[in-house]
Amino acid sequence: MSKIILTGDRPTGRLHVGHYVGSLKERVRLQNSGLYDEVYIMIADAQALTDNAEHPEKVRQNIIQVALDYLACGIDPEKATIFIQSMVPELTELTFYYMNLVTVSRVQRNPTVKAEIQQKNFESSIPVGFFCYPISQAADITAFRATTVPAGEDQMPMIEQCKEIVHKFNSVYGETLTEPEIVLPTNQACLRLPGIDGKAKMSKSLGNCIYLSDEPDEIKKKVMSMFTDPNHLRVEDPGRVDGNPVFIYLDAFSKPEHFAEYLPDYQNLDELKAHYTRGGLGDVKVKKFLNNVLQEELAPIRERRKMWEQRIPDVYDILKKGTEVAEKKAAATLKDVRAAMQINYFD
Amino acid sequence: MSKIILTGDRPTGRLHVGHYVGSLKERVRLQNSGLYDEVYIMIADAQALTDNAEHPEKVRQNIIQVALDYLACGIDPEKATIFIQSMVPELTELTFYYMNLVTVSRVQRNPTVKAEIQQKNFESSIPVGFFCYPISQAADITAFRATTVPAGEDQMPMIEQCKEIVHKFNSVYGETLTEPEIVLPTNQACLRLPGIDGKAKMSKSLGNCIYLSDEPDEIKKKVMSMFTDPNHLRVEDPGRVDGNPVFIYLDAFSKPEHFAEYLPDYQNLDELKAHYTRGGLGDVKVKKFLNNVLQEELAPIRERRKMWEQRIPDVYDILKKGTEVAEKKAAATLKDVRAAMQINYFD
Repeated sequence: MSKIILTGDRPTGRLHVGHYVGSLKERVRLQNSGLYDEVYIMIADAQALTDNAEHPEKVRQNIIQVALDYLACGIDPEKATIFIQSMVPELTELTFYYMNLVTVSRVQRNPTVKAEIQQKNFESSIPVGFFCYPISQAADITAFRATTVPAGEDQMPMIEQCKEIVHKFNSVYGETLTEPEIVLPTNQACLRLPGIDGKAKMSKSLGNCIYLSDEPDEIKKKVMSMFTDPNHLRVEDPGRVDGNPVFIYLDAFSKPEHFAEYLPDYQNLDELKAHYTRGGLGDVKVKKFLNNVLQEELAPIRERRKMWEQRIPDVYDILKKGTEVAEKKAAATLKDVRAAMQINYFD
Repeated sequence: MSKIILTGDRPTGRLHVGHYVGSLKERVRLQNSGLYDEVYIMIADAQALTDNAEHPEKVRQNIIQVALDYLACGIDPEKATIFIQSMVPELTELTFYYMNLVTVSRVQRNPTVKAEIQQKNFESSIPVGFFCYPISQAADITAFRATTVPAGEDQMPMIEQCKEIVHKFNSVYGETLTEPEIVLPTNQACLRLPGIDGKAKMSKSLGNCIYLSDEPDEIKKKVMSMFTDPNHLRVEDPGRVDGNPVFIYLDAFSKPEHFAEYLPDYQNLDELKAHYTRGGLGDVKVKKFLNNVLQEELAPIRERRKMWEQRIPDVYDILKKGTEVAEKKAAATLKDVRAAMQINYFD
């Protein structure tokens, strides 16, 4: 059986370092691993519209931003198919038929849907489209016969729901769909990077994100303003590293070789943490180190992004070609689905 | 502005006299009136699947039965476009985007949805697809820019919901969609014909329907077994005509000329009702008259149906051509919808 990846992002803003360590970096690694036969990366504009229906221009503008972020991170159009969700109409058709296989109460019990409804303050005014997005996501995954979905821990209930739909479809209509598996980031710190203000989630509206497209001085300003241990007032005070965003970022980004280059007093992160914990290490010194680490990681990404920003027509061309490839694949799956459902009347 | 009709039926069984007086007869009249620029008649297989997902073969088989019933009643493929819903994928795409404009609680308040959930004993296990069918129906209506939807009274809340979606879409994305109006049958008795057992609804599972394809002896047997006034035991007893299925059917079907031909003792239905009410008129006499009336109305329909049954490949051809015409129309509307939503990225 082919090994196929499907993953993607909602185009509601530029991508930030949380997206990067949480999934983009891993995607590039998987793309280059040679272990996968097909890699599909979806710009999920139709899903973004389920809770941004009144702001289609925001979604439209961010499609190109997300595409630039992808290319900047090393997604390679020769190895991965980048496509726009709404330009593959087969996905809505699959969604429509899968909707018959899921009950309203099952979706209501989906923990991700529950949490997002709360987060977005929808209460009883949830748009039906948003409510149904786990079903739409199952359509996206199965359309490409994805075996592997690299995603964050918060997406586990969605993959569970997708598997249920696959089982239900296959048991009612005969073996047709492929069951996917989630691949989580191995580094715990990468599962969900907090905002620079210490809030659990990076969000454009909170202004607490470091973007992949940020300039060096913006990155430095953000790092130097980061929330740390609020009880670590004087250098000599003992400090906490658990839940301290600066150390979570170092967990996610720093490697031993960074110490040799930027902070040779320490061999590795454990030594740095030990010093901070017992007292005598100031926040400024740690932040300067984090800044160096981030600048080193983000500089080549930003440079590639600038290069692609000069080639917007080529980026559109990549999206257009990717979408053609994606549509062909989804159409083949839909053909099988319709045949299994016996609704291929004119064949 | 063009005057356009959209109407249709779920292919879950052969059509019966309830469908006939409730909408088919009116459709033929409207089709032949010369007042409409376009007439679309949809075999709603995708909608039927929302609560028959596990029985696609039932839906598949009934598509041809419903098509035969249409042609038998006088739907003329030269004047009306008969098409299969699931073969027009644009409808699922419109549904998908309209789902963003309706809240879950709004659908939950839809009286038709409420009633059907109760009727079908779904309770909390309503399939999402069935729950969303008012939105799908709005997609069907607006895809064809229908101005006129001939339907039963029970469909009024669906048309209301469709109008709300049209308003919402047009206010968010700019004037794009056309608002439909419902056209109800003018004869009260035709709004909802009871079953021959007196139950409010004709249903295949209750075995209380007279089908358009029934043979003369079946019709007679069903009419002679009809439920009447249970207190009208002897001929001389006074009888009730209100809520009496035999008289409701006569309200729906009989014309003064039928009396001249089959029951010349009475001028019209009012005289017959008066006699029944005061006593002295037996059920058998009334039933025999109803049988004559029904046989006269249904004979040419049955004959035309038999003729078409000999030409199944031609019927498929009609459906295929109709579906092509319908898809072209729906694609044009979808193009406008996508442009209004600014998701026509590659145009």
